[in-house]
Amino acid sequence: MKISNYPAKNTWSDLIKRPVIKREQLSELIVNIFDEVEKNGNQALIDFNKKFDRAEVKKIKVSKEELESSENLISEELKLAIQQAKENITKFHASQIPKIQKIETTKGVVCWRENRAIEKVGIYIPGGTAPLFSTVLMLAIPAQLAGCSEIILCTPPDKNGNINPAILYTAKLCGITKIFKTGGAQAIAAMTFGTESIPNVYKIFGPGNQFVVAAKEYSQHFGVSIDMPAGPSEVLVIADENAVPEFCAADLLSQAEHGNDSQVIFISTDKKIFNQTIGEIEKQVKELPRNEFAQESLKNSHFILLKTVDEALEFSNQYAPEHLILAVENFENYIDKIQNAGSVFLGNYSCESAGDYASGTNHTLPTNGFAKNYSGVSLDSFVKKITFQNLSKKGLQNLGKTIELMAEAEGLFAHKNAVSIRLK
Amino acid sequence: MKISNYPAKNTWSDLIKRPVIKREQLSELIVNIFDEVEKNGNQALIDFNKKFDRAEVKKIKVSKEELESSENLISEELKLAIQQAKENITKFHASQIPKIQKIETTKGVVCWRENRAIEKVGIYIPGGTAPLFSTVLMLAIPAQLAGCSEIILCTPPDKNGNINPAILYTAKLCGITKIFKTGGAQAIAAMTFGTESIPNVYKIFGPGNQFVVAAKEYSQHFGVSIDMPAGPSEVLVIADENAVPEFCAADLLSQAEHGNDSQVIFISTDKKIFNQTIGEIEKQVKELPRNEFAQESLKNSHFILLKTVDEALEFSNQYAPEHLILAVENFENYIDKIQNAGSVFLGNYSCESAGDYASGTNHTLPTNGFAKNYSGVSLDSFVKKITFQNLSKKGLQNLGKTIELMAEAEGLFAHKNAVSIRLK
Repeated sequence: MKISNYPAKNTWSDLIKRPVIKREQLSELIVNIFDEVEKNGNQALIDFNKKFDRAEVKKIKVSKEELESSENLISEELKLAIQQAKENITKFHASQIPKIQKIETTKGVVCWRENRAIEKVGIYIPGGTAPLFSTVLMLAIPAQLAGCSEIILCTPPDKNGNINPAILYTAKLCGITKIFKTGGAQAIAAMTFGTESIPNVYKIFGPGNQFVVAAKEYSQHFGVSIDMPAGPSEVLVIADENAVPEFCAADLLSQAEHGNDSQVIFISTDKKIFNQTIGEIEKQVKELPRNEFAQESLKNSHFILLKTVDEALEFSNQYAPEHLILAVENFENYIDKIQNAGSVFLGNYSCESAGDYASGTNHTLPTNGFAKNYSGVSLDSFVKKITFQNLSKKGLQNLGKTIELMAEAEGLFAHKNAVSIRLK
Repeated sequence: MKISNYPAKNTWSDLIKRPVIKREQLSELIVNIFDEVEKNGNQALIDFNKKFDRAEVKKIKVSKEELESSENLISEELKLAIQQAKENITKFHASQIPKIQKIETTKGVVCWRENRAIEKVGIYIPGGTAPLFSTVLMLAIPAQLAGCSEIILCTPPDKNGNINPAILYTAKLCGITKIFKTGGAQAIAAMTFGTESIPNVYKIFGPGNQFVVAAKEYSQHFGVSIDMPAGPSEVLVIADENAVPEFCAADLLSQAEHGNDSQVIFISTDKKIFNQTIGEIEKQVKELPRNEFAQESLKNSHFILLKTVDEALEFSNQYAPEHLILAVENFENYIDKIQNAGSVFLGNYSCESAGDYASGTNHTLPTNGFAKNYSGVSLDSFVKKITFQNLSKKGLQNLGKTIELMAEAEGLFAHKNAVSIRLK
């Protein structure tokens, strides 16, 4: 925990510095894996499963039986929870479907935009200790709403060659049936090139370790696009005198438990709340099953006293956190001042985990300062916005002279002629 | 000109193949230029101006006097044309500003999105024969509408150290005053790192040669984002029996004149229109000042007869053209079938050059098949969409159990605790 009391503004640039991420630069390893998968398809994936995941998998594709039986392997109450989350996420993302607005820019010249789904998308879900079925919801729901015609999911098998049933259940609930047992860079390669079983896709979504991140970056060399650049998860909490130290501590810890490299920043304008929150953290952290992770990431966390909420927001805008919790009274007054953040949680009862799971907003958000120039995943991430225009003869007459003059001034006479020949 | 009569569908994959682009892979050259600019700032830019553009430039920044006097160096009618184009582009892009929609996903749980401008953006305008002041409009107008607080423009000087007055006039008209005389990879490096004169930016927009493209790609390694991947310009024209061969030929040529590598595809369902269009092209091309470019790119163009407009659209969707012209009757009936395209021009009077200059739509569009997974530039390109949520105590009570169950199933107990502690 690094504590700063009223740091001067010229010291902020140090405080907002993120630890340098060890980027697996498009290393030989990634290139080799891509080559292998491009050449040997499914067999390469089966071999990599053995090598990296110590899993014997005969069939890469999850069978209908596996998918069906997942339902019996998780509790009824968890199913209901996932269903409620699905409903909320669907409601919120459905509201992002735009109405078509035809704009007559000049009499006889009508322009508009229409969404078209990216036809083929791939979702990557990491394996490891936490089965991220919530991420399945966050990516599959907007993909379905957008109307993507091919949605596939890759996730590594466990040592017995199985996929966590909560992941399978959630995928099935979201209408995804093409699920493949492959992880790491090889899964990204498979979605890039396609194999005998796995269709290639145009865009790849989802979190992953450094190899997955490097592989997603490399996949772009083959025309694939990706959701956004990756980095460790982050939260910045701003608390005034009306904040509740227990709640603030719990929010900070829920970020810290993600991993050693999670970023946690706490800013308060109230000394008492500040000190009590630190005390609460020390109390709560002991009871966490993942307290090693939390302890480790707390070491790099910043606890900062500042004079005003305005100043705190100025700091936050410079840091550009993935998650911003505004535990302040009259938070409405501060919304317009928020410039850079992935997702914002307002008031004492808006905990980050609400947005992580079930409130309806997406949890795939820009980290590592990318909230300055990237949005989180939304329905937009699964569509292209195509512009359309229709000019009547009259419309072209009204606009023709302008086009001709501009084309000529740019030295593009065929551009000019396309108008002149029509108006002749 | 490569002519195909009713090619079988299994041969289409050859027809939609684009020529392989020589990509200046993040070569040593680019890395060195970036290093040089990072180290030596303005002086590096001045040196590169000498070396690459043979221009002596003492001050990198365009002076107030240069900016003011640009107005006197272009004709009144061109100024009026640029103003009309600006009006239309403004109208269309202003319609892309979304209304905030608050969604109550569960009683007491309210979620919404708000746009925030990317604070610092950079526009690159290439030099060369054609002064692309139209691209200034296409990038500066949405940047201003989005509310970007810092908008800068870099463009290479001519041999006398000057910038084309039409570019300066247009920039000034759009409220851009920070204009810098630097081009190529060094301009991209300057916007990435900043120099004594040039502020660094968070996102870089604009076209350029292979060095600029490679530099934009490289800039992403430093956290900068870019508008989209680049490739040569393209048009695909679909003509039925109601199309006008003269118009089709003019449209195809207006694409072909861009450069040797421009992509031109013509599909007709009518043999007579097909042959007449080919005849018209041979006639019109001779009269073009840039006919060398046009002749060269026509060599690689495809002229394809197909049976139906539906089939033509199927082909087009596989090709995913930057520009699609639908010179067919009842084009309304086909709009829903368009899946992959950058921008679509409907009917006999909607020539591509209308959209290139003045109808209102943006001309910065995905090429090289990227229309499958990228949108063209729009207001969206200059903003982040931040999600917000506010849960009342009652709201968290309604959703709490769901969050707790999901967090627990993912093994994230601090996430669960952030809810439990609030509901205790």
